[in-house]
Amino acid sequence: MSGLHGSGTGTRVVIVGGGFGGLSAARALRREGVEVSLVDRRNFHLFQPLLYQVATGALSPANIATPFRWALRRHRNIDVVLGEVTGFDVAGRRVLVGEEALTYDHLIVAAGATHSYFGKDWQDLAPGLKTIEDATEIRSRVLLAFERADRETDPEKQAALLTFVIVGAGPTGVELAGALSEISQHTLKNDFRHIRPENAKVILVDAVDRVVASYPPELSESAARSLRDLGVDILVETRVTEIEPGQVTLDTRGESRTLPCATVLWAAGVQASPLGSLLADQTQTTIDRAGRLPVEPDLTLAGFPEISVIGDLASFSHGVERPLPGVAPVAMQQGQYAARRIESIAAGKPPPPVFRYRNRGTLATIGRARAIADFGRFRSTGFPAWLIWLFVHVMELTQAESRILVLTQWAWSYLTYNRSARLITNGAPRRD
Amino acid sequence: MSGLHGSGTGTRVVIVGGGFGGLSAARALRREGVEVSLVDRRNFHLFQPLLYQVATGALSPANIATPFRWALRRHRNIDVVLGEVTGFDVAGRRVLVGEEALTYDHLIVAAGATHSYFGKDWQDLAPGLKTIEDATEIRSRVLLAFERADRETDPEKQAALLTFVIVGAGPTGVELAGALSEISQHTLKNDFRHIRPENAKVILVDAVDRVVASYPPELSESAARSLRDLGVDILVETRVTEIEPGQVTLDTRGESRTLPCATVLWAAGVQASPLGSLLADQTQTTIDRAGRLPVEPDLTLAGFPEISVIGDLASFSHGVERPLPGVAPVAMQQGQYAARRIESIAAGKPPPPVFRYRNRGTLATIGRARAIADFGRFRSTGFPAWLIWLFVHVMELTQAESRILVLTQWAWSYLTYNRSARLITNGAPRRD
Repeated sequence: MSGLHGSGTGTRVVIVGGGFGGLSAARALRREGVEVSLVDRRNFHLFQPLLYQVATGALSPANIATPFRWALRRHRNIDVVLGEVTGFDVAGRRVLVGEEALTYDHLIVAAGATHSYFGKDWQDLAPGLKTIEDATEIRSRVLLAFERADRETDPEKQAALLTFVIVGAGPTGVELAGALSEISQHTLKNDFRHIRPENAKVILVDAVDRVVASYPPELSESAARSLRDLGVDILVETRVTEIEPGQVTLDTRGESRTLPCATVLWAAGVQASPLGSLLADQTQTTIDRAGRLPVEPDLTLAGFPEISVIGDLASFSHGVERPLPGVAPVAMQQGQYAARRIESIAAGKPPPPVFRYRNRGTLATIGRARAIADFGRFRSTGFPAWLIWLFVHVMELTQAESRILVLTQWAWSYLTYNRSARLITNGAPRRD
Repeated sequence: MSGLHGSGTGTRVVIVGGGFGGLSAARALRREGVEVSLVDRRNFHLFQPLLYQVATGALSPANIATPFRWALRRHRNIDVVLGEVTGFDVAGRRVLVGEEALTYDHLIVAAGATHSYFGKDWQDLAPGLKTIEDATEIRSRVLLAFERADRETDPEKQAALLTFVIVGAGPTGVELAGALSEISQHTLKNDFRHIRPENAKVILVDAVDRVVASYPPELSESAARSLRDLGVDILVETRVTEIEPGQVTLDTRGESRTLPCATVLWAAGVQASPLGSLLADQTQTTIDRAGRLPVEPDLTLAGFPEISVIGDLASFSHGVERPLPGVAPVAMQQGQYAARRIESIAAGKPPPPVFRYRNRGTLATIGRARAIADFGRFRSTGFPAWLIWLFVHVMELTQAESRILVLTQWAWSYLTYNRSARLITNGAPRRD
């Protein structure tokens, strides 16, 4: 069915993936005559930085998801395509979406990343946090562990049910650990008759020697202090060597031990989308160990000026100490750059020669009222950092309605420690 | 593990099911010395009258679900048990929940009802609307139909994708039809590039000769008028004789025809929970055609004064023209009665002899600003009825937070026709 839909006379742009990179590219392509197709497997953009709030029952999926068609309703030049990209034909300049083929003059690939279990088969034993379904699955597992502990009469099994291990102490791991700890300390405090949820153990494990190692050491120190205040056990220089049902084996500086534990959550490795290697095969590009495609200073693939790769799928290492990290601000700025470049070319003007990342700062939250903020020269911790975090995240939510709802819900949760979205839905029986 | 948890010296009450009946019974059992176990397969009470709002993307599951532990946090005499009831031992006065057995002095069975497909295997072809998962499944199917229509180039297939048949014109069917029609007329109006969502057909089918036949004829007439104004096709005296993928066969007064149609929703038959027949076997009770257990004037089973059956599972026909309908007010009043009766017996006082249903009125909504209300002598239609409907439903939501959030969300949807919770989640691919 190639080219059946919209093959006008203008410049045809196909964007693969509607995360932070793809969506900001789509929004920036407003020039008349530029026709855009945005392809995604889902019908919504996901505000991933708040996904851990869904996993811990504070927010509902719809609070952090914006339907693409709503987000782009005023962009009459954009055609949203719900579908799975199955391949590329770079010679014919086509993207294959099931039976359909979308032709392009310019292609922006922003397919993102998924978890990496370093070759282990731990997916089902230790779910990660990338999708809405991941978040509701984690929410269900955590709540079910408390429910089962309440009915369990064997003290050892009960202790294992009340032990939560989080693998990876990056921002996601730290945020999850803080939220989990608060749930057991406050939210569930009076909920059970046979257990004391505040006895639950939350253990945060990382192979390196400090938490949030991408931040400056003093912010790591502050984060660790906040986590300990919340009752989180931090195990640094510790690798997970085995995960089995009901237990996890840890190795701390060569010393091994096995920990009974019913719930393991994965916040460690990241692997670029498999679409990266499909594209690499067709363009004779060599992907790196994390599956990312090295890009030119203008974000294109070497020898393919019509193909831009942005976001978590791209490895950009021009004029920077180390490749840019896989975070939302990088992806968004790359999306905007790629769009500007294409519009310049379409207008017959010289494109901006080099992408430059402007680091406007990074933020991570720990529990309900603490955070760390790194804006280069300006750093902040504790409650002030949390207020900045709150402001930035709520303002960035793409739907005005979501902002109001999320603020209402947070105000309520903040005052009452209530987490109303604590529904066990996945895996539970559906009907009689 | 019989009796391992909580077998004190007081009166032991086990409640099976935490719907409107079971939850109101639990809440009413506040007498000291009365120990209650509330058993449910889910960890939350579901406000079913608003489930169609989740199915049509206006509300999130958490808006209409209240975790039992939260709802009952101040009831220290209630033990919430998350689990599936697998059987009864009425001689030993025990309820079996997996490996566990809960002993009782009094048993309240409020296990509710599920869909009935009249013996047909149409479950997957025409999902019904009883659970959160049903609602998100319907939401996904409806939205996917529009998405697929947008990519479809064969006009006939496109028309089938834009045809929605709702089987059953009771309150749920009418509410679904009204909401679906509004989605196509307003919410999705500018969302697509290759279809006009307002051309979608919503067809409401019922075997009897008018919609919402449980209401007085003039209210049915008003509901039908409102539905037609919204563009809904109403087919009365029409039975569904076959449902196949992509088409449905209808029989109108003996005349048969086949309609191409990608989405069929089921709002017709209701069947009592299978727990009913388990209980009937043990008590030599004969269930009726809908699987319900006939109860005595005091809601107990004949010969078993310690077993009350309430809500959709009970058939109550004492002093009423026809058996009480399976609606929330009946279940709630029965729950309160059963609780009062048990507390009287526990206190050594004579129990209230007979359950009497006080009909305080019924309400159904049609679209965003119309409803029908039947309060016996006082009847109302249109916008005034809708305001009553809004007030009653929002006030009945059990969490204060939900009330605020639902009102905010509705105010927003009302002003903008936006339905932000239109996420396609079930069945979609989970990750790379």
